[in-house]
Amino acid sequence: MGFLKNPSLISSRILKLSFFLIVFIVNNSFGAFGAKTRHFKWEVEYMHWAPDCKEGVVMGINGQFPGPTIQARAGDTIHLELTNHLHTEGVVIHWHGIRQIDTPWADGTASISQCPINPGESFVYRFKVDKAGTYFYHGHYGMQRSAGLYGSLIVDVEEGKKEPFHYDGEFNLLLSDLWHKSAHEQEVDLSSKPMRWIGEPQSLLINGRGQNNCSLAAGFNNSTLSKCKLRGNEQCAPQILQVLPNKTYRLRVASTTALASLSLAIGNHKMIIVEADGNYIQPFEVDNMDIYSGDSYSVLFTTNQDPSINYWISVSVRGREPKTPQGLTILNYKTTSASKLPTLPPPISPPWNDYNHSKSFTFKILSQMGSPKPPVRPHRRIVLLNTQNFIDGQTKWSINNVSLVLPATPLLGSMKYNLKGAFDPKKPPESFSANYDVMNPSSNPNSTTGSLVYTLRFNTTIDVILQNANALAANVSEIHPWHLHGHDFWVLGYGEGRFKEGDEKKFNLKNPPLRNTAVIFPFGWTALRFVADNPGVWAFHCHIEPHLHMGMGVVFAEGVRRIGKIPDEALTCGLTAKMFMSTKN
Amino acid sequence: MGFLKNPSLISSRILKLSFFLIVFIVNNSFGAFGAKTRHFKWEVEYMHWAPDCKEGVVMGINGQFPGPTIQARAGDTIHLELTNHLHTEGVVIHWHGIRQIDTPWADGTASISQCPINPGESFVYRFKVDKAGTYFYHGHYGMQRSAGLYGSLIVDVEEGKKEPFHYDGEFNLLLSDLWHKSAHEQEVDLSSKPMRWIGEPQSLLINGRGQNNCSLAAGFNNSTLSKCKLRGNEQCAPQILQVLPNKTYRLRVASTTALASLSLAIGNHKMIIVEADGNYIQPFEVDNMDIYSGDSYSVLFTTNQDPSINYWISVSVRGREPKTPQGLTILNYKTTSASKLPTLPPPISPPWNDYNHSKSFTFKILSQMGSPKPPVRPHRRIVLLNTQNFIDGQTKWSINNVSLVLPATPLLGSMKYNLKGAFDPKKPPESFSANYDVMNPSSNPNSTTGSLVYTLRFNTTIDVILQNANALAANVSEIHPWHLHGHDFWVLGYGEGRFKEGDEKKFNLKNPPLRNTAVIFPFGWTALRFVADNPGVWAFHCHIEPHLHMGMGVVFAEGVRRIGKIPDEALTCGLTAKMFMSTKN
Repeated sequence: MGFLKNPSLISSRILKLSFFLIVFIVNNSFGAFGAKTRHFKWEVEYMHWAPDCKEGVVMGINGQFPGPTIQARAGDTIHLELTNHLHTEGVVIHWHGIRQIDTPWADGTASISQCPINPGESFVYRFKVDKAGTYFYHGHYGMQRSAGLYGSLIVDVEEGKKEPFHYDGEFNLLLSDLWHKSAHEQEVDLSSKPMRWIGEPQSLLINGRGQNNCSLAAGFNNSTLSKCKLRGNEQCAPQILQVLPNKTYRLRVASTTALASLSLAIGNHKMIIVEADGNYIQPFEVDNMDIYSGDSYSVLFTTNQDPSINYWISVSVRGREPKTPQGLTILNYKTTSASKLPTLPPPISPPWNDYNHSKSFTFKILSQMGSPKPPVRPHRRIVLLNTQNFIDGQTKWSINNVSLVLPATPLLGSMKYNLKGAFDPKKPPESFSANYDVMNPSSNPNSTTGSLVYTLRFNTTIDVILQNANALAANVSEIHPWHLHGHDFWVLGYGEGRFKEGDEKKFNLKNPPLRNTAVIFPFGWTALRFVADNPGVWAFHCHIEPHLHMGMGVVFAEGVRRIGKIPDEALTCGLTAKMFMSTKN
Repeated sequence: MGFLKNPSLISSRILKLSFFLIVFIVNNSFGAFGAKTRHFKWEVEYMHWAPDCKEGVVMGINGQFPGPTIQARAGDTIHLELTNHLHTEGVVIHWHGIRQIDTPWADGTASISQCPINPGESFVYRFKVDKAGTYFYHGHYGMQRSAGLYGSLIVDVEEGKKEPFHYDGEFNLLLSDLWHKSAHEQEVDLSSKPMRWIGEPQSLLINGRGQNNCSLAAGFNNSTLSKCKLRGNEQCAPQILQVLPNKTYRLRVASTTALASLSLAIGNHKMIIVEADGNYIQPFEVDNMDIYSGDSYSVLFTTNQDPSINYWISVSVRGREPKTPQGLTILNYKTTSASKLPTLPPPISPPWNDYNHSKSFTFKILSQMGSPKPPVRPHRRIVLLNTQNFIDGQTKWSINNVSLVLPATPLLGSMKYNLKGAFDPKKPPESFSANYDVMNPSSNPNSTTGSLVYTLRFNTTIDVILQNANALAANVSEIHPWHLHGHDFWVLGYGEGRFKEGDEKKFNLKNPPLRNTAVIFPFGWTALRFVADNPGVWAFHCHIEPHLHMGMGVVFAEGVRRIGKIPDEALTCGLTAKMFMSTKN
């Protein structure tokens, strides 16, 4: 009868708690005060998979795509042995949103925190998940995130503690985008002279599932795709969210897209945003929410609609002219059949270029009362101009006209051991020319490549002004979600045009949200503040993977002399390996 | 007028010597007795390229595909700094046919002689080319050879010495095969459960050039492809060989195919084979010659045909039912226009399964008078059964029912330093069951994977009997060209069916050819002899790259205690890195 004969259903996690408890007890050992060390053994390999019904190759973990969801409690320690079963490629995994206090070597960023794990070798990531929240993990080497190396990381509040909001059950929605061209080929395209842009994704995925050659909502939308004929057990069949009427559910939403900025909506249901990037915020209600690559949110919704029909959950592209169909799944009231298609059309997302709508959403994100407040004054302000450049025939993204090229020897080791020649020691520019016109294309004749390492005095307060500008083409300025490793930062404010002296007087010091990812809007600026209190070397970059590949990032090094023991395995390459080996062989 | 407006011409090397001399003097420094150290700086990267007129991605060196030709003289030292500009992949290069005496760490085989060179890092290969001959080089990690990482390596006789045959000029023909599916995807296909076979190549390439969507010989053959419309400067335009009438030319032919066994012919011209794998042989004349992956030959031909027309040079698939068009280029008598197509049809190669023709060619290859003779008796005989197996749902090639899986720590280091746990120390089987029926499929229920390291006593004489057998499907037994690193071996004989006691009495000890690659014919055996006199750890494997990927190889370790200093850079991974680093960090 329905479009799915045996729908792939997920029930909310709280209702399945008894099942989870059994698994946890078997897998893990309890420590003091209820905190545990949770052990995982993961194997990374390429697999044939059909995330959007068209078969291709993805990076999987333990035979799964997306990788397994890590479920832990605040205070737990993750002990994860990762084995590389790729044939010729190294691999690392970044634990997005985890601050890695005392474990900067476990941050999983190639060229920064560790050497790539070579094929056939293993590496143990051991780190504390100190703060409850919605996180995820992903590859951070080349474009392995685009290749499908990602999954969810959920940290619940400590045993016995309560969230500041009530809910009856929860679901994870990990959002991503998919290209049919391999990530390898995309890397070559992006590095070509002239650069070949990867274009828009073929599909949007919800928990690794989408439909490219058919539409769940055929008939409702003006797509020419025919209605999907899925049995429900396909790799591309949507995971249907099963709910009971008149309950409140928590959606844990995270975006690990390579490129796409997204809008999420649940047909007929309001959503209340309560958490952003692992930090509680002042709840506010929306019909649809924006989510950029690198963002994570918790959202509450109440099942107060007609329980005899089902509803769409939709994901649409924003900020770029969308050429990708909506990603869809179904909210199923258990009072009706999960196989019944919704009778109403899928939610219509705001126009892709309605930036006022986006800004209105973003500006509503404010910290909850009682959240940590930022220091009143910074010790240093770093202004980072986001531009595009031509360098040696390649199109690059540049920061203050320097395009990031990461060194072969990871910076954490080379800086701790003060190795000469491991990276470009030149101090990167603290700002950009006063004459630079952010509203128009610039030829940027002096642009170069570099390691872009900003050394921060330990425990100082740093302001970063992310300054957007016109890209190479006239009248083009794109959205960039910037993600900081090792820290949360306060988002102090946003502005239009070029940041100017005096703008800091308008900073929100009262209730700025703490986040690890913040967006810059076209032709605008965003001001961030953080305290450089986490000894380590940390990436700060646009979370759009092709942009990072094209050089859009910088590195912050802080408290370098306080960096503790780095496991040998993290140093087994480049000049650190040379240093340790030179006298013995 | 012609099919090529500006044909891409190559003149023979001897005639261009003046040009080469200038280049050599600039690049290289002369040493004592005329021997030189030749310095090279190579950068490996992926590039867009259209080897067969369809654009794809290949591995290139210094922007070239195939990689640059190395030209040296016997006794010279090659000093080659290789920098890896791939994004996430390691790389190594094997110098096929070079014995690496005293430099086993420079053999360029991942997991055996060195750690892969990580992205952004460099490695210096330094080795002596001690013997004149026709060689080539190629990637030896995953399926990077299939990805296009190869080139020619030509070693001329020492200054003042003469070849034992006369010629007026010479050309290189490096033969390869090309798939439109990436080598990455092929690796995934081959490792899948169930295995997905890569199929036949889309194109055959001569010096990296072929035509897939058109035919140079349209009208002559029964192909439906239309005539190529090439200007001559395309990446896929054939390199036309320009000759003068009534001269003798040397063709240096080498095959680096991933899969295809080939037949080479020059329309209307006889060929005299004078060198095989860097060793002089008794000259013999043929109309067409077989060449297997891993083989190299020198061939003389005389331009004694009608100088007013041009002639085809053709390459065709043998030993597998051919689904790939002939590879073609043109022999141009300078007395006529290079743009004129031959008026005769391309040479017709023998039927693909005419194994008697193949055997007849192979059996004619005998060493030249005065060549080194094999020791009369071996100290040890190792019999290697070549079978296919299912292991854990994967299709594997196996040797004595063990399928090769190489360790993460290269064996040269782990054996020199006697590291525990670096590889499976189990002695591999010296032979296979007396009950095994080589003429029929076997289920091989006890097949396993392993490191297959045969430890050979230094300076002993080893006989290897390569025993072919039926593969998994009934009535199927394939050709396998086996290549030995670090050595030449004598090919003592070939036989049909199972090798049995007494067969050794028929061995040719009088004039067996010295080679580094030898073929086993379907359902037959091939007997080889070599002296384990080169301290090192050496791969011995089927040179068909997907077969090696599926486990078709073994390792010979000899004189391990005599292995000298290994550069640190060759050991910077796995347990050797751990050993050197453990006490210092």
